[in-house]
Amino acid sequence: MEQPRILITGGTGFAGSHLVEALLEQGYSDIHVTSFSGEDSFIARLIGSENIHRLDLTDSESTAKLLQSLQPDQMYHLAALAFVGKSFDEADRVLMNNIAVQQSVLLAVRDHCKKARLLVVGSAEEYGVSISEEELPVSETHPFRPINPYAVSKISQDMLSYAYFVSYDLDIVTVRPFNHIGERQSTEFAIPAFTKQIVAIERGEQTELKVGDLSTVRDFTDVKDVVRAYILVMNKGKSGEAYNIGSGTGVLMSAIVEQLSALATKEIVIVTDKSRLRPHDIPKMVANNAKMKLLGWEPTIPLEETLRRVMSWYRNN
Amino acid sequence: MEQPRILITGGTGFAGSHLVEALLEQGYSDIHVTSFSGEDSFIARLIGSENIHRLDLTDSESTAKLLQSLQPDQMYHLAALAFVGKSFDEADRVLMNNIAVQQSVLLAVRDHCKKARLLVVGSAEEYGVSISEEELPVSETHPFRPINPYAVSKISQDMLSYAYFVSYDLDIVTVRPFNHIGERQSTEFAIPAFTKQIVAIERGEQTELKVGDLSTVRDFTDVKDVVRAYILVMNKGKSGEAYNIGSGTGVLMSAIVEQLSALATKEIVIVTDKSRLRPHDIPKMVANNAKMKLLGWEPTIPLEETLRRVMSWYRNN
Repeated sequence: MEQPRILITGGTGFAGSHLVEALLEQGYSDIHVTSFSGEDSFIARLIGSENIHRLDLTDSESTAKLLQSLQPDQMYHLAALAFVGKSFDEADRVLMNNIAVQQSVLLAVRDHCKKARLLVVGSAEEYGVSISEEELPVSETHPFRPINPYAVSKISQDMLSYAYFVSYDLDIVTVRPFNHIGERQSTEFAIPAFTKQIVAIERGEQTELKVGDLSTVRDFTDVKDVVRAYILVMNKGKSGEAYNIGSGTGVLMSAIVEQLSALATKEIVIVTDKSRLRPHDIPKMVANNAKMKLLGWEPTIPLEETLRRVMSWYRNN
Repeated sequence: MEQPRILITGGTGFAGSHLVEALLEQGYSDIHVTSFSGEDSFIARLIGSENIHRLDLTDSESTAKLLQSLQPDQMYHLAALAFVGKSFDEADRVLMNNIAVQQSVLLAVRDHCKKARLLVVGSAEEYGVSISEEELPVSETHPFRPINPYAVSKISQDMLSYAYFVSYDLDIVTVRPFNHIGERQSTEFAIPAFTKQIVAIERGEQTELKVGDLSTVRDFTDVKDVVRAYILVMNKGKSGEAYNIGSGTGVLMSAIVEQLSALATKEIVIVTDKSRLRPHDIPKMVANNAKMKLLGWEPTIPLEETLRRVMSWYRNN
């Protein structure tokens, strides 16, 4: 296999680290990542610390220099601030950071490695509110009706990438992942937050499981299936197109909490914590994944298996 | 008539100054504007210099203070960097400025005058490329396919406003104006640029009219009709909705140049100037204005009359 040189921004993060693992499993070997801190023992063991490049992606000059010297063939742009729950309070930082970084990446590709294929990570949050059952499951043509600044930052990244695709003929594909879960996810997100609490209850450090609104329906996919989809879109996706990545199955958040509780070694008492409620939430987000299926992708890992793995990871970490 | 207190950001600019004139004509009298420099003799004569508030809208603290003290009932947010042609080179500044200002305005309304109605100015540029004749004329549900960072900044403003409408129940309406023309427009835009050159040719200061790509079709509306539409949307528009503002008639740019040339007192020789060509341009942008018509709006000023007025204004200024 001819080895493309791969660069992953945010390669030491949650999805990024799973992407590195999946690429190695598939036989890719020339893998570089950028990291804000420049250090990550987990990724260093996988690809060598010399392939972790310390970089502040908001610094467009340094970003340009790295791309000029590395000359990647494929670039996965995953780096972003991604705290949906907090993002009204931190709206400025989330919006400005994600857009500045996207622009820095696009300019560097345009000016220094125009032949590279760039995969941009959007989000199901871009679609936001569905106003009728006919709009569900959500296809790639669903209108943007975002409900928070994080979602707006992802729309901006997505649309800015489209503008560079059209105006500079850059080779860009976009993915719009729905909720994904797995090891190493930040406890800012719902499922790791629940799991961490359940593990604390098992250890006798906490008495009750505090939850927010559990009436929402979400589409959860194992992060390992998600990063396989990224690799497929990188290699087979059509330039200028966006691809929904999600299982296609909606699950009530309350059902997730029940499944997690059933995996616990102690009985779990659930209480609603008002501080976990958002000003507004999207009732139902389920992916229409027909476009990804046409590329040959299908989720392979059942939700229960993922939840078991996540629970086991949080018990050990 | 009970007088609402009106605040216009960018009220000393092109559309802003026409909006002030139109509001005065319609009997509104409690009109305030913000201005970056804080001075504008034209607007000062209309509303008094004490009603021009010097303000850097990217400064969210100062913006919040002004809204807290003024307590506007209606707020027209027009201020934005709007140089489409230049915006790839100045992409950083246009994107970051327009989004930062929008966020500053939304936060100030949310925190200090939540009952105010806010009108946000998007742009037909948000729609960008149409991929089939069926998508034309462009309705409000046309997908966003922007081709430059200015368009992306307007999408971001539009979507951020939507997020605040949904999540904080703010009273927000959005307008998406197509091309508009009239007195006092910056010569960064095509028609003022042509007109200025033609006046220079009439004066013997220039020999040829330099033009860019004239094969594009655009929808031109007199700025006086456009600001009347803004006032109508402010008073009758539905919260959370966006309204296209355009005549509904497409005109070839070459036909505009012909009409302007016909108004000149000298013969006009036209030459193509490659520096005026953009990396990519949208072939055809024409508004479907059915939604505005339902509100009771119709353009009233024929294009020829507007062009005569513009020509006459540039001869005297």
